[in-house]
Amino acid sequence: MKMALVGFGNVGKAVAEVMLEKRELLQKVGFEPTVVAVFERDGSWIDEKGLKLQEILSKGNSSPSWVEGAMAEERIADLDCDLVVEMTVTNIDDGEPGLTHIREALENGKDVVTSNKGPLVLAFPELMDIAEKRDRILLYEATVGGAIPVFHVAREALLVNNIISITGILNGTSNYILTKMTEEKVSFNAALREAQEKGYAEADPTYDIEGIDAASKLVILANGILKMKKIINDVRIEGITRITPEMTELAMEDGYLVKHIGYVDRNRIEIMPRLIPRSSPLAVGGTLNVISLKTDVAQDITLIGRGAGPRETASAVLGDALYINKIRKENK
Amino acid sequence: MKMALVGFGNVGKAVAEVMLEKRELLQKVGFEPTVVAVFERDGSWIDEKGLKLQEILSKGNSSPSWVEGAMAEERIADLDCDLVVEMTVTNIDDGEPGLTHIREALENGKDVVTSNKGPLVLAFPELMDIAEKRDRILLYEATVGGAIPVFHVAREALLVNNIISITGILNGTSNYILTKMTEEKVSFNAALREAQEKGYAEADPTYDIEGIDAASKLVILANGILKMKKIINDVRIEGITRITPEMTELAMEDGYLVKHIGYVDRNRIEIMPRLIPRSSPLAVGGTLNVISLKTDVAQDITLIGRGAGPRETASAVLGDALYINKIRKENK
Repeated sequence: MKMALVGFGNVGKAVAEVMLEKRELLQKVGFEPTVVAVFERDGSWIDEKGLKLQEILSKGNSSPSWVEGAMAEERIADLDCDLVVEMTVTNIDDGEPGLTHIREALENGKDVVTSNKGPLVLAFPELMDIAEKRDRILLYEATVGGAIPVFHVAREALLVNNIISITGILNGTSNYILTKMTEEKVSFNAALREAQEKGYAEADPTYDIEGIDAASKLVILANGILKMKKIINDVRIEGITRITPEMTELAMEDGYLVKHIGYVDRNRIEIMPRLIPRSSPLAVGGTLNVISLKTDVAQDITLIGRGAGPRETASAVLGDALYINKIRKENK
Repeated sequence: MKMALVGFGNVGKAVAEVMLEKRELLQKVGFEPTVVAVFERDGSWIDEKGLKLQEILSKGNSSPSWVEGAMAEERIADLDCDLVVEMTVTNIDDGEPGLTHIREALENGKDVVTSNKGPLVLAFPELMDIAEKRDRILLYEATVGGAIPVFHVAREALLVNNIISITGILNGTSNYILTKMTEEKVSFNAALREAQEKGYAEADPTYDIEGIDAASKLVILANGILKMKKIINDVRIEGITRITPEMTELAMEDGYLVKHIGYVDRNRIEIMPRLIPRSSPLAVGGTLNVISLKTDVAQDITLIGRGAGPRETASAVLGDALYINKIRKENK
């Protein structure tokens, strides 16, 4: 399998590192890809015979395979490769450059794995249509819940079930803030500052605290698991900025926690603060994410894990890549 | 695919019912088995051309396909079928009759799915050896955590990870008792009585409250996921009978819950009461089960679900059957 990595920030580097670290284990399961290109913002490393990831990680653009100015959007279409792994930064305004990368890859007969929410939030139905027409696979486990294999479980492990609804905490930053407010009785602003100091929240935390990031993930869950055709504008969104320590304390007294909960079924798609019983599987603290699938035979199946982190994301990205590798080998 | 059901109690009946209920969905994923035999304790329904499950469920042994006295242990070896689903009652003293059923099926070239812990607790390495020698598949998702697809996740979805340890609450009855003691400050005996009244605990609750059932599941997790070769005698077992409401209250005051926790890594395998922070993903209440996999890339991935119930178990059994069906179709 010939493979291209698009985007070489924290996630791209972690994927390369884990591939090196796990070379033996990956060989055992039949995954020995030739990495023919790694695309960065200002150029790329290209070698049809296979790049040395170790050299790229250590030498950066002083490696002999570096081609200044070679951009993914111009190269992907004609690139001789089977799998494109799209890991550029999420942009939910126009999805670029990820949207073009994924479209070009699928249109030109390559399977795609992505960790980038933007293209899916804006164009999930279109991308799935292209994939189907070209008989290609598009997987996106890393876009929701970090390392949590929720799409894999829904697709492969709960086959006999109809999934009725999905409920979850889909953003670690807002969960961290609400957990702090509850446990330490501090204000929203104080908890946010601490999240920023610890690196859990961006300087501009709008997407996290206003529920836009969580809404994006909800859209991907709705389309990917419930086979709906939703975009982010369909989601009823309420952030957590109006939650006060008095609210979290009052909730606690009655055995509840205030959590920022995403919910989707056939009739409703919304992200908003809700009271969750302390003993509920959804009542996870800190930066954890949780996703609960309500099904008709297995009942509720809940998955909890780290919602972010380069290695956690790499676990999901490589899980998808291995899955595609297996399918393509079987069909040869 | 020709299929035989062995055991037609609550689980066997639920599997038949779900197969009927989900016929359309199962056809869509290419699962259209011919059920050639259903074995009961005192006889069986046999028809090489395919039994009507609806008729067996409604007419029982007045169905024309009923053969009084035809026993699974005598028939399985020569039965013309591809998949044997073993669902007789767990017996962890000698594993019978399930152990003979599984051994005979594998030795005679049939794949096996089981919901029966007994044979695996006593003979996991032996059965896996037979399966490997005969190039057959033996799956057992339903034996641990009911509907929770933990073996599937470990085997398929976390492929790039090494799984370092497994921690969990593996018995719904003991979890119900401890939850009651904590929430209502009642004694162990009062909580046990309530569990018995609600049908969560047997008249003889020893296996649940002394940790033997949980230890059995821990052995299956250790062998199935960590590739160890453990039997139940290797497990350090401590029950919950000595827990008092004073202990659970004291724990609560410090933000902890007393839980009956199974744990296994390379050095330790044990089931015992432990203090778990209330905010931990392991702190689930009622009859829920939880299993947490500690991994080296994805970090902790935790799964929560119903640990028992005929339909929940049927979800896991049929998930395994569908998986085998898919593999066998691909290899044709």
